[in-house]
Amino acid sequence: MDVAQVAAPAATPVASQILIDGEWRAAEAEGTFHAENPAKGEALPLAFPISRWSDCDAALDAATKAAAELRNIEPAKIAAFLEAYAANIEAAADSIVAAAAEETALPVTPRLKDVELPRTTNQLRQAASAAREESWRRPILDLEKNIRSCFSPIGPVVVFGPNNFPFAFNGVSGGDFAAAIAAGNPVIAKAHPLHPNTTRLLGEQAFKAVEQTGLPPATVQLIYNVSNENGLKLVGDPRVGAIGFTGSRNAGLHLRVAAEEAGHPIYLEMSSINPVIFLPGALAERREQLAQELTDSCLAGSGQFCTSPNLLLVVETPESKSQTEAFLAQVAKSFSERPPQPLLSAAGRKQLHDGVMALMKAGAQLVTGGNIAPGEGYRYANTLLRATAEQFLASPHDLQREIFGNATLVVTVNTQEELQSILRLLEGNLTGTIYSAKSGADDDTYNTIAPLLREKVGRLLNDKMPTGVAVSPAMNHGGPFPATSHPGFTSVGIPTSITRFAKLDCYDAVRPERLPAILKDTITNPSTWRLINGTWVKG
Amino acid sequence: MDVAQVAAPAATPVASQILIDGEWRAAEAEGTFHAENPAKGEALPLAFPISRWSDCDAALDAATKAAAELRNIEPAKIAAFLEAYAANIEAAADSIVAAAAEETALPVTPRLKDVELPRTTNQLRQAASAAREESWRRPILDLEKNIRSCFSPIGPVVVFGPNNFPFAFNGVSGGDFAAAIAAGNPVIAKAHPLHPNTTRLLGEQAFKAVEQTGLPPATVQLIYNVSNENGLKLVGDPRVGAIGFTGSRNAGLHLRVAAEEAGHPIYLEMSSINPVIFLPGALAERREQLAQELTDSCLAGSGQFCTSPNLLLVVETPESKSQTEAFLAQVAKSFSERPPQPLLSAAGRKQLHDGVMALMKAGAQLVTGGNIAPGEGYRYANTLLRATAEQFLASPHDLQREIFGNATLVVTVNTQEELQSILRLLEGNLTGTIYSAKSGADDDTYNTIAPLLREKVGRLLNDKMPTGVAVSPAMNHGGPFPATSHPGFTSVGIPTSITRFAKLDCYDAVRPERLPAILKDTITNPSTWRLINGTWVKG
Repeated sequence: MDVAQVAAPAATPVASQILIDGEWRAAEAEGTFHAENPAKGEALPLAFPISRWSDCDAALDAATKAAAELRNIEPAKIAAFLEAYAANIEAAADSIVAAAAEETALPVTPRLKDVELPRTTNQLRQAASAAREESWRRPILDLEKNIRSCFSPIGPVVVFGPNNFPFAFNGVSGGDFAAAIAAGNPVIAKAHPLHPNTTRLLGEQAFKAVEQTGLPPATVQLIYNVSNENGLKLVGDPRVGAIGFTGSRNAGLHLRVAAEEAGHPIYLEMSSINPVIFLPGALAERREQLAQELTDSCLAGSGQFCTSPNLLLVVETPESKSQTEAFLAQVAKSFSERPPQPLLSAAGRKQLHDGVMALMKAGAQLVTGGNIAPGEGYRYANTLLRATAEQFLASPHDLQREIFGNATLVVTVNTQEELQSILRLLEGNLTGTIYSAKSGADDDTYNTIAPLLREKVGRLLNDKMPTGVAVSPAMNHGGPFPATSHPGFTSVGIPTSITRFAKLDCYDAVRPERLPAILKDTITNPSTWRLINGTWVKG
Repeated sequence: MDVAQVAAPAATPVASQILIDGEWRAAEAEGTFHAENPAKGEALPLAFPISRWSDCDAALDAATKAAAELRNIEPAKIAAFLEAYAANIEAAADSIVAAAAEETALPVTPRLKDVELPRTTNQLRQAASAAREESWRRPILDLEKNIRSCFSPIGPVVVFGPNNFPFAFNGVSGGDFAAAIAAGNPVIAKAHPLHPNTTRLLGEQAFKAVEQTGLPPATVQLIYNVSNENGLKLVGDPRVGAIGFTGSRNAGLHLRVAAEEAGHPIYLEMSSINPVIFLPGALAERREQLAQELTDSCLAGSGQFCTSPNLLLVVETPESKSQTEAFLAQVAKSFSERPPQPLLSAAGRKQLHDGVMALMKAGAQLVTGGNIAPGEGYRYANTLLRATAEQFLASPHDLQREIFGNATLVVTVNTQEELQSILRLLEGNLTGTIYSAKSGADDDTYNTIAPLLREKVGRLLNDKMPTGVAVSPAMNHGGPFPATSHPGFTSVGIPTSITRFAKLDCYDAVRPERLPAILKDTITNPSTWRLINGTWVKG
């Protein structure tokens, strides 16, 4: 909800249209904003509206109608929409990628075009398969007692996408969108103000798919921005079913209060520093390779990944201190040699710098970087800091501050006791990684620390950087607070992510002909897994 | 957390012991309280302590240790505990039932001994089966990507039981307790102050089972009461994993704020008026039988059931008005003829009377009852009120106020439009019931209104009163806010209820020998259902 209110270029065009109830129309705006090209630090020409409450109100009314209509629409039709949308995105890929590159300065290759866009269409297609299969509804039949239950759509879902993934987490195309639609809900997408034009272009393809497949017009609606006050009012409105949010902890927690006062589930993905532990045997075996992998992971997307490693715990023995130093020297060298890529915004760069300064104030020592980088756009020098375990244990709160961007803190750890104490003091994170010797030399340490790390993270990795988040049914892109608002849910991974946007519907002694198709004794969909009298069966 | 601070009998004995870290010991108390015999309105002799924070602190420390130990304990051992506990309860049934009858005035037969106690031990045994089977952990294996996930224990669970089910929802023996333990978590039970002695006796059997089966001593801990301030501090403590609460909306929402500030999932079951709709064809067919069923359901446990019908919507046609009147006359007659049973407390009776007065102030007309009943104990006349649909639509908030106890509001409805409008204005409820003609005469109306009712309730029933809550895997004892805090969870129904007390743990590229047994390629437990590459398989 942070409005990037940049000075508009001289000739301000009319603000872009919002999508409400099947119509692209002018917003009832209380202002406009412009995105920027972060590679140049210049405002872009298109103006976007900051909607008044009346736009939200209209979207909520239309979504309420659409939600009721969607309940009577075949899942196959919802699947067809998701697939048509994926195809439309592919057909319009060049212009969408160009817009995103302009608004985010993320590289076209190997990021926007080659990785994030295919990942996004893949996600939409997986959601389509799940919608068609219907197993996400987890039907349970107790035939003896004639009690049956399944998940059903929860109602209109408001999705707030983050700044860092203009496609894969976008409110109108990302994981929350795909999950909410697959569950049979209409979505009101709120664009992230750093990439409104990308969102507009995606919204166009989404609405085209709505028309192609004959879904209710308000299945997909799009607004670009609202005041903080109206954002809170929106998530607290009784017409809302649930909310998906990816972004800052501060904004997320404010939205949560408003949503929960109204009784709406809200799923927040907030902050994570993604600890990566290097045990000494791993460094002895493959120090150079690990330094390389680590650098790639830390600097991918200028470190603006939810799963970017911001905290490294390098464990050393009295004998391995020189190895630690060689490892860190290599990482520092790579950090300083690679040209810093632009960050997403001036505000983000300022927060990053403030974070680096705060870490230093808390005792961290600067190894490289720590300054705004020269040249065009919002660049910040790739930054490595270090601290000792003693220092970390003295200021555990300040030294696990999230630093969103290309800065990483290394903590050198001398004893298992120190390591255990640090792990006990960690807040919840999305991921936690342990690199250990292939020889088994680190296994004793691994076995001691893995259970402690396990408690603090949603996804535990071995010998692999956390920045890749595969769209797998077994994925957990979630974790204990403050990484997310509930450690039992994931925002990535289909069909698991879909049930977030569902309510549990039980039918007790309901007459056979009145049961929904998925709960009748004989099911027509041959693909659906159902738990009948304790046994999972299909068809 | 409402402390029943009744004047103590003259010779106050030493307060009963609390159970902390495997030891029955004196509380560090800041006061004591006495339960009452609601059938007589007299305080009972046993004194129970109001614990200071130091007791909570000790319980939290012990639970933290127990949680870590439980993670390495075979599920079969947890199952054995639950079964031993069930057997212990049965062996001590006479004294437990006697204590509950004394503290609650609920009938021994057909309630405490014949229904609630067997239901409680059945629940514990179902939880044992689920713990042994392990399917509740919902293991998902993506073998190609080597990503695996399952649910794992969330950490120490604090359970607050309600006043109305001294066994089946008790913090130390009920559904939340069974689910939290089956998931592998230690429980800190907070007794309801209206039945501390029942809770003490159950706690003794629970701890005996802990010792019999060699679980960590702090697997079950018990305190009787704390100040509101310490209750909030308890649920907000970082050592807590999750909280289960059944009780009033006001207390629940305060606890939620404290729990969520600390990032803990909290599951609230709060208020529900359980609308029951009578369509005209049903009354034409079986009016007398339905009046009987309805009376039984409304007055069971003096109406102090979460699923008690507090709102009846009787639909009439111009021709069926006399039928409605005959139906209501019969219900009113039964209400007035059956002797009112004692309510659980003086405070509950006052709230009930205040609720009845509030309904009347909002326009409801008293048909029968509406006064404190003469005789011993906390009795209130069985109360029936009526209002028109017009009145309901004019004051929908005030006329759907929860009235916990033996009072029910009938709303007579003349048109389908009125009925639809009422359903649209209903808050979330645990249950919603529709009685319709067996002949099919009401089917058109059913088909119009069922989708509207469906959105407002967790469990939809046909031709059956909602007061029976079967312990079935397909049960949903949950529903949209304010019935509960999240419409995707149920507190009754194993294994579904168990996952509330779990976090989702993903393993990404973790080496095979380091995976938990449930996620290895080959599983040793032949009973566990796992989703492997999209197919549910066992063994």
